[in-house]
Amino acid sequence: MASPIDFYFDFISPYGYFGSTQIDALAARHGRTVVWRPFLLGVTVVKIMGLKPLMETPLKSDYLRLDKPRMARILGVPFVQRDMRGVSSVKASRAFLALDERDPAQAKRFAQRVFARLWARGEDITDLDAVLEEAAAVGADTGWLAAEIASPEGKRRLEAAVDHAVAQGVFGAPFFIVDGEPVWGVDRLWLVERLLNKSA
Amino acid sequence: MASPIDFYFDFISPYGYFGSTQIDALAARHGRTVVWRPFLLGVTVVKIMGLKPLMETPLKSDYLRLDKPRMARILGVPFVQRDMRGVSSVKASRAFLALDERDPAQAKRFAQRVFARLWARGEDITDLDAVLEEAAAVGADTGWLAAEIASPEGKRRLEAAVDHAVAQGVFGAPFFIVDGEPVWGVDRLWLVERLLNKSA
Repeated sequence: MASPIDFYFDFISPYGYFGSTQIDALAARHGRTVVWRPFLLGVTVVKIMGLKPLMETPLKSDYLRLDKPRMARILGVPFVQRDMRGVSSVKASRAFLALDERDPAQAKRFAQRVFARLWARGEDITDLDAVLEEAAAVGADTGWLAAEIASPEGKRRLEAAVDHAVAQGVFGAPFFIVDGEPVWGVDRLWLVERLLNKSA
Repeated sequence: MASPIDFYFDFISPYGYFGSTQIDALAARHGRTVVWRPFLLGVTVVKIMGLKPLMETPLKSDYLRLDKPRMARILGVPFVQRDMRGVSSVKASRAFLALDERDPAQAKRFAQRVFARLWARGEDITDLDAVLEEAAAVGADTGWLAAEIASPEGKRRLEAAVDHAVAQGVFGAPFFIVDGEPVWGVDRLWLVERLLNKSA
């Protein structure tokens, strides 16, 4: 059995969203599965790398404003630009990890809904209500999930996930690890494909 | 006549080097020519964007150390990693612009040699002697060129080139503009190809 592809994402990244719409189908074409792994760009980019959020970076922010809808058109997926100030993926990521421990397939469906809520419909994902609404839509027990999100164990899971990502050298989203090889960026899906072809 | 592709580069960027080895052949396959345009990453990335040099950025620097030789293997071009501290492209860029005013084809051959000196052989390009050695190899008048590099006009040309790049939204290297559409990164050569196919 070929090993799964690791897909590292943060719900707040539009390029992570783009990656999420492609990676499972790409992997399946090569007989691979994908393990979805949330992390927090606020930790990697801002705290560890000491950079500004992308959309606060002169020149690059103008480019990205043009590039994001262009990439959505190329991939054929819905996309809306939105102001990301105040948007946090912490509760949604904790929810993902709690679901993932019990049922990875359900957790993935939840993540796809959270990505779509934020990037296809342009609605916020920060508040508990928003997170539970998407969890309910995939059949999760929202009472249990709300308790998990607020619990020390819920917090610990996300901290451990971020530590794990950093230990793997993950810094941006999407970030893929294919048979130990790191690949950063949705513009590198061709490289993921190439690595899978090489290993076939 | 289809309009030329603009190729923005800084000799100090290894990804700019990778782009330089591909773009003219890619353009030619689509009946296009390429205008080479130097700029300075020290102005865009450090001064305007307020970022650190890439290799001083935690996590990303480890990724790039792995990715650069990988990209060289993929493209089939020679490449050596080297310490970039103290390396400056200012004199080489001034030389390029002086040559380019008289003979763009010669200037391009000079630029290819400067890129190869730094990234294929790992030798410095900072000093006037190094710049003149590569200029002599393409048949340039080195006495005239040395005077141009040191002249107020030589300095003004490079300042104007950087201002022009920034006005076009250029921030990283390589950066391509294809029929008005900006494309950043050697990992986006597929997008340059796609834009050229669309316009055909």
